[in-house]
Amino acid sequence: MKILFNKPYKSGNELKYIADSIESGKISGDGIYTKKCHDFLENKFGYNKALLTTSCTDALEMAAILIDVKPGDEVIMPSYTFVSTANAFVLRGAKLVFADSKKDHPGIDEEAIETLITSKTKAIVPVHYAGVACDMDKIMELAKNYDLFVIEDAAQAIDSYYLGKDGLKKPLGSIGHLAAFSFHETKNIISGEGGMLVVNDEKFLKRAEIIREKGTNRSAFFRGEIDKYGWVDVGSSFLPSDIIAAYLYAQLESLEFIQDRRKSIWNRYDNAFRGVLDSKHDITLPFIPSHATNNAHMYYLVCSSIDERKKLLAYLKSNGILAVFHYLSLHESKFFNGKHEGLNLKESDRYTNCLVRLPLFVELGEQEQDFIIKHINEFYKKK
Amino acid sequence: MKILFNKPYKSGNELKYIADSIESGKISGDGIYTKKCHDFLENKFGYNKALLTTSCTDALEMAAILIDVKPGDEVIMPSYTFVSTANAFVLRGAKLVFADSKKDHPGIDEEAIETLITSKTKAIVPVHYAGVACDMDKIMELAKNYDLFVIEDAAQAIDSYYLGKDGLKKPLGSIGHLAAFSFHETKNIISGEGGMLVVNDEKFLKRAEIIREKGTNRSAFFRGEIDKYGWVDVGSSFLPSDIIAAYLYAQLESLEFIQDRRKSIWNRYDNAFRGVLDSKHDITLPFIPSHATNNAHMYYLVCSSIDERKKLLAYLKSNGILAVFHYLSLHESKFFNGKHEGLNLKESDRYTNCLVRLPLFVELGEQEQDFIIKHINEFYKKK
Repeated sequence: MKILFNKPYKSGNELKYIADSIESGKISGDGIYTKKCHDFLENKFGYNKALLTTSCTDALEMAAILIDVKPGDEVIMPSYTFVSTANAFVLRGAKLVFADSKKDHPGIDEEAIETLITSKTKAIVPVHYAGVACDMDKIMELAKNYDLFVIEDAAQAIDSYYLGKDGLKKPLGSIGHLAAFSFHETKNIISGEGGMLVVNDEKFLKRAEIIREKGTNRSAFFRGEIDKYGWVDVGSSFLPSDIIAAYLYAQLESLEFIQDRRKSIWNRYDNAFRGVLDSKHDITLPFIPSHATNNAHMYYLVCSSIDERKKLLAYLKSNGILAVFHYLSLHESKFFNGKHEGLNLKESDRYTNCLVRLPLFVELGEQEQDFIIKHINEFYKKK
Repeated sequence: MKILFNKPYKSGNELKYIADSIESGKISGDGIYTKKCHDFLENKFGYNKALLTTSCTDALEMAAILIDVKPGDEVIMPSYTFVSTANAFVLRGAKLVFADSKKDHPGIDEEAIETLITSKTKAIVPVHYAGVACDMDKIMELAKNYDLFVIEDAAQAIDSYYLGKDGLKKPLGSIGHLAAFSFHETKNIISGEGGMLVVNDEKFLKRAEIIREKGTNRSAFFRGEIDKYGWVDVGSSFLPSDIIAAYLYAQLESLEFIQDRRKSIWNRYDNAFRGVLDSKHDITLPFIPSHATNNAHMYYLVCSSIDERKKLLAYLKSNGILAVFHYLSLHESKFFNGKHEGLNLKESDRYTNCLVRLPLFVELGEQEQDFIIKHINEFYKKK
């Protein structure tokens, strides 16, 4: 048996919608399917404004431009995250201030944030790791008290929710001033490469459109609000082709099915491992805090050592199972490790060394999953 | 009759290749069709390295990062160009130094460049307007003498050539240190949104891969050159989905057919107007200098005044023909006009005010074209 780590899902309507987009005569950005995706996402998740982008990276870059990050501004984020969370702000000259992860979850340690705030802090970028919500009440309160922007890195967090102190269930990405999502083929909802900027704070709406349209007021022009358009701001080409949006729309229509399948696979892993692996071995299983829902983006184990992980990955691989590790602490990277003195982020390094992601995709069959579970259990029995 | 300004071309194989890309199980960047496009483009045009990007804008941004543009560095470019030529460098903190266009062509006035070079000049960005080559011998010589980089903005210049003093016919985009192409749906070869960075200078090859992969050495990792990859540089997500590359590949296969059709339409306009409109009226027709070939990207007329253009566009529109103007001098834009004192670029302003682009696309029929020609002639007879 050969089990891939991920297999991009097809709902069956992707090609039909792509053909339709091509037939529409407009396959550049903001065509008919882009509009359909925007409408779907705004209606389903109550975002003030959804804007498709070519990637989550690009959505983060838009956010960095929108909040006007200037050289020397400080931005707080976890070290255990994808490089794009960091690069988007480095490209604007920001100084990165890395926080550690929590002991029970790879997400940013909310308790550590306040100690990192200085007069130069401009923004906090919580990353909803594995689609599991950070404590947004706490983060938004800090932002309010210190007058900071919050940009949710919701790359993995589609269809996941935060349960606030006010008793409301809020979709991730709808809480911060801005939020960035990914539709990369490794995510729950995909378009190959792709992303979305969510604009929640009204004051960014107009400028977001401009920055996404290469710094021109073209969108206002096409709505008939102005009589010619031109260069009014910095910007880039953040619009994906409508072909990408057509693929995405087919996925969004299948959101419920996809999520049901993923949750069922996630629960099956969890039922097999919880109370078994974590009680007999020094293994951390995924933790969903009471303020969060589970969008089943990822099932992971945190091994007790890098050596144990290495052996586990090799054992699974030798049995045809592709499990993979994840991020490397950004503060320890070649790019950044000369830029700090002795920053010690223990939990971030632990996830760097010990976290293993298991195959989780819609078409993963029960037999395949049993095969994976059996081999992980076997590995630990032999230990 | 209703005649659009542009109609995106379909070769017929686009959907088939997209389906094939989807079936391959990898629709993120650098999949099988991205590789096919890279190979095709490098073989056909002899580029050292072709790298697909999500847009020409993004290719220009990559170039600006690659040549390490720093705040205060000066970059010389024409004012009569698309905003992305400028924004890509503004985002890195560059000071833009705008040159005028030529009297006989909207491209940069090569004679003006040397007077604009200072000790802070970092790069020259010639834009091959309408796919017509700038005088690259002159520009490359300046670059050599003053130790500058040349980034060809070849957005419109696919399959167009420069005839050098050495007697060689060089594809545009293969001459500067770097070059950026567009595959936006308005171009000769399209993928909806899309672009390409061409890396000619060997010294940029390794870093170009890294910057395109979010600042990581992931490409080297997948080639087995290093045993793990991480954050080593700034970067962004410049890779288009393989779905976009699949569309593009179908177009590239039809390059010869597309170019033959476009050239035939271009020549038909030219035969109808040359010696007629330009001799009896104060109209400038497209000029192809002896050092350039014609890739038939665009057929345009330059009217004698903004008022004449306004009336011509309205007259054509009232007859169902969508002709359009083009760039607005960037030095006169809202974004830039507070950043200079009395910069006077007369030719750039003339093209801004007077240039009209005529419908030109593969499926434009002879009857339709006759209809356009007839109405333009009628407009000028009535004048």
